[in-house]
Amino acid sequence: MTLKDVVEGTYAQAQDELFELLRIASVSADPAYKPEMQRAAEYLEGKLSTLGFTARIDATAGHPVVYAERLQAPGAPTVLIYGHYDVQPPAPLDKWQTPPFEPTIREGRIYARGATDDKGQAYAHVRGVEALLTQGELPVNVKFLLEGEEEIGSPNLEAYLEAHASELKADVIVISDGSRFAPDVPTVTYGLRGLSYVEVHVTGANRDLHSGSYGGAAPNAINMLAQIITRLKDDQGRITIPGFYDGIEDLTDEERHMWAQLPHDDAEFAGSIGASALPGEAGYTTLERLWARPTLDVNGIWGGYQGKGSKTVIAGQAGAKISMRLVPGQDPERITRLIQEYIPTIAPEGAQVEVVGLHGGQPVKIDLDNAYVRAAGRALEAVYGKTPSFTRGGGSIPIVAAFRSLLKAPVVLVDFGLNADAPHSPNESFAVEDYRNGILTSAALLQELGRAGQSAQDSA
Amino acid sequence: MTLKDVVEGTYAQAQDELFELLRIASVSADPAYKPEMQRAAEYLEGKLSTLGFTARIDATAGHPVVYAERLQAPGAPTVLIYGHYDVQPPAPLDKWQTPPFEPTIREGRIYARGATDDKGQAYAHVRGVEALLTQGELPVNVKFLLEGEEEIGSPNLEAYLEAHASELKADVIVISDGSRFAPDVPTVTYGLRGLSYVEVHVTGANRDLHSGSYGGAAPNAINMLAQIITRLKDDQGRITIPGFYDGIEDLTDEERHMWAQLPHDDAEFAGSIGASALPGEAGYTTLERLWARPTLDVNGIWGGYQGKGSKTVIAGQAGAKISMRLVPGQDPERITRLIQEYIPTIAPEGAQVEVVGLHGGQPVKIDLDNAYVRAAGRALEAVYGKTPSFTRGGGSIPIVAAFRSLLKAPVVLVDFGLNADAPHSPNESFAVEDYRNGILTSAALLQELGRAGQSAQDSA
Repeated sequence: MTLKDVVEGTYAQAQDELFELLRIASVSADPAYKPEMQRAAEYLEGKLSTLGFTARIDATAGHPVVYAERLQAPGAPTVLIYGHYDVQPPAPLDKWQTPPFEPTIREGRIYARGATDDKGQAYAHVRGVEALLTQGELPVNVKFLLEGEEEIGSPNLEAYLEAHASELKADVIVISDGSRFAPDVPTVTYGLRGLSYVEVHVTGANRDLHSGSYGGAAPNAINMLAQIITRLKDDQGRITIPGFYDGIEDLTDEERHMWAQLPHDDAEFAGSIGASALPGEAGYTTLERLWARPTLDVNGIWGGYQGKGSKTVIAGQAGAKISMRLVPGQDPERITRLIQEYIPTIAPEGAQVEVVGLHGGQPVKIDLDNAYVRAAGRALEAVYGKTPSFTRGGGSIPIVAAFRSLLKAPVVLVDFGLNADAPHSPNESFAVEDYRNGILTSAALLQELGRAGQSAQDSA
Repeated sequence: MTLKDVVEGTYAQAQDELFELLRIASVSADPAYKPEMQRAAEYLEGKLSTLGFTARIDATAGHPVVYAERLQAPGAPTVLIYGHYDVQPPAPLDKWQTPPFEPTIREGRIYARGATDDKGQAYAHVRGVEALLTQGELPVNVKFLLEGEEEIGSPNLEAYLEAHASELKADVIVISDGSRFAPDVPTVTYGLRGLSYVEVHVTGANRDLHSGSYGGAAPNAINMLAQIITRLKDDQGRITIPGFYDGIEDLTDEERHMWAQLPHDDAEFAGSIGASALPGEAGYTTLERLWARPTLDVNGIWGGYQGKGSKTVIAGQAGAKISMRLVPGQDPERITRLIQEYIPTIAPEGAQVEVVGLHGGQPVKIDLDNAYVRAAGRALEAVYGKTPSFTRGGGSIPIVAAFRSLLKAPVVLVDFGLNADAPHSPNESFAVEDYRNGILTSAALLQELGRAGQSAQDSA
């Protein structure tokens, strides 16, 4: 029986198990969900134990880490598979067609918070390993590291990696936590953007004021916050923070050429999100802006009266969450410090401002010539029947940088999802076919990584 | 027994009754409070009936109107006393030292939503009438018109005035719904600003987007809303809407001189609201900006993620409540139309905007030489023992314009409150002494208005 037959034959069970995991509301950003975080960890530890892995739940200063290993392939490479079982908050709830934590299938897609980011993609590896085990022993030694704080910046995972560095030692690290380029374009991702995330608080008066009694003479926290936000970018879409662009690696001609070949259409891209335009930094294509250029977005804003009707008040306070995506050459801590120093200098007269750093993540770029990266390409080709593309991702997996610096192993990013899955948004989903192909790709990948390790030894 | 003795002797009861009224959460902006609106109306109707008034509750398309009359002074003027029993929403609740609808006395002040705006000031007239009745029949015919929709722009009162124009006929209209200039400066207010209030909705993408996957190429509704807000004013604090300032009456030298004499100190004013500056339109003093110049303030803003932690999302939609205070020469409907036409022209590429008009109110100016206005000055002088000041107010009482146009009677504004009462803000309050003086002033005012009517007849 071929691997494909095995995966097809056991898919129903694979889907039932994923649904069980998706029903657990493991939201890491909000302490109210702490019990669900524990339940999700226990579910994964239990499953991996039944697959003959030595599995355990390790406590951290925050949410727990699930670690499991099966080291039965002496001489073969060791593969560390990373994923995360925490999910983004489901807000705004009223935008969901079906409840975020009641997985539902519509038109071949699994709808649920975490369906693609990252429960569906991480669990595909669990089932990939299970499929391989029906063929005999695994071709490589496998370690699973499944964390619960990716969506809040993995504040405790670096300490965990340092404490368990020798135990986590691996020849290659595999991560599936993003989107491939397009439905018919299997992708190996070799770069990710970093992140600097801050919260800005603006105070005008020491209380909300009657706009009749004070309008015209009192500082308005919301108007001032709007001015600060506007001053963070110029009319070319460039970020005005002094030193922000220092040290950024320019795009190579090879990258510009490679990406120009990809099937991308701006009008189609805009249409897919219902946008009437694609504003951004002048002088770069959309793909270049998404993958190789830094950006700044306000992620949330609040102030004054948000209820029904018309309250004539001048808000004493207002706030906003602002994040910047970073590219190779930029350091999150430095960028956070720069914006903390800059905002007070552009705040209007009468504004008392506070800029709090929430979290950050290092941008990364991976060596395209690495033997394991090529093996990943072969595995994708075997499953999808076409040459994979090598792209970068606009998102951040802060921990990837930590893996490279602490575990000294190459990181291979093989994404089973799609942007159309709407991760982080209401109605997040994951295609049934992508889940099934993900399971098959995981199995094929472990086989290819085994061969890559073999040839590496032969040539030694 | 003098009126003063009567008011002193019955003050405890006057306070108990006001507390009962303040305990009723009559918030007109939120339909959830509808039952409390009815209870407040019934309380006032009942009280006025016990004073021998013919009182009733008239339904409207919105919240009911309380109307009561006592016409036992043939030949004497008829005085229509207007007030409102609805209050502003209490949000933000966590800023209140004691619950908004549990009136509490601290350091000589009554703390409660509506304490000064307008339950305390309106009820002072009820008790003023009660005090006069201990001396015999009222010196004037009195009509009470107490509405329940002032805080939402009195959407149904004009229709009510038209329907009851003959019944409401009066020689003078008295309103106490604002702030006198300072604790030791009794004030007759002869002008009020108008209002245009709109809500702006900005849409970028058709859903919230992952800032990693889309940051740099997708329109951000919050950033675009901030740009729109910023572009509504120039760096001199002037509103940029074309035609906005057309037709505005300039300040007279007399007004500039009269107001320059008033006890006002910018540093003290800023200190009273904890502000580090008093930004506003260049070329005008603070009092001129507050009373005789139009202004624009954002009253509320929302969009994206407002919860705990850091959600990396690009908001598909954002919104803001924006209001403009207007001065004589500006028409609310025209100004609302102007901003509705203007905002789309300053919206950034990629922004889909909608500007909804919420409500408006006409600015007004009252004749300083009117006999009843002079009578009001004498009543204040009698109670406070000093010459009153004639000022304008920065707030709006949209209905004042309707009174003048529909009832053709002069409107006398005698305010018992203070800005320090913090109307519309958390911890709104009303000084016990101001409530007591308000009762006394109301009684004295009705006597002076009677004399004014008499001399008017004598000179006839």
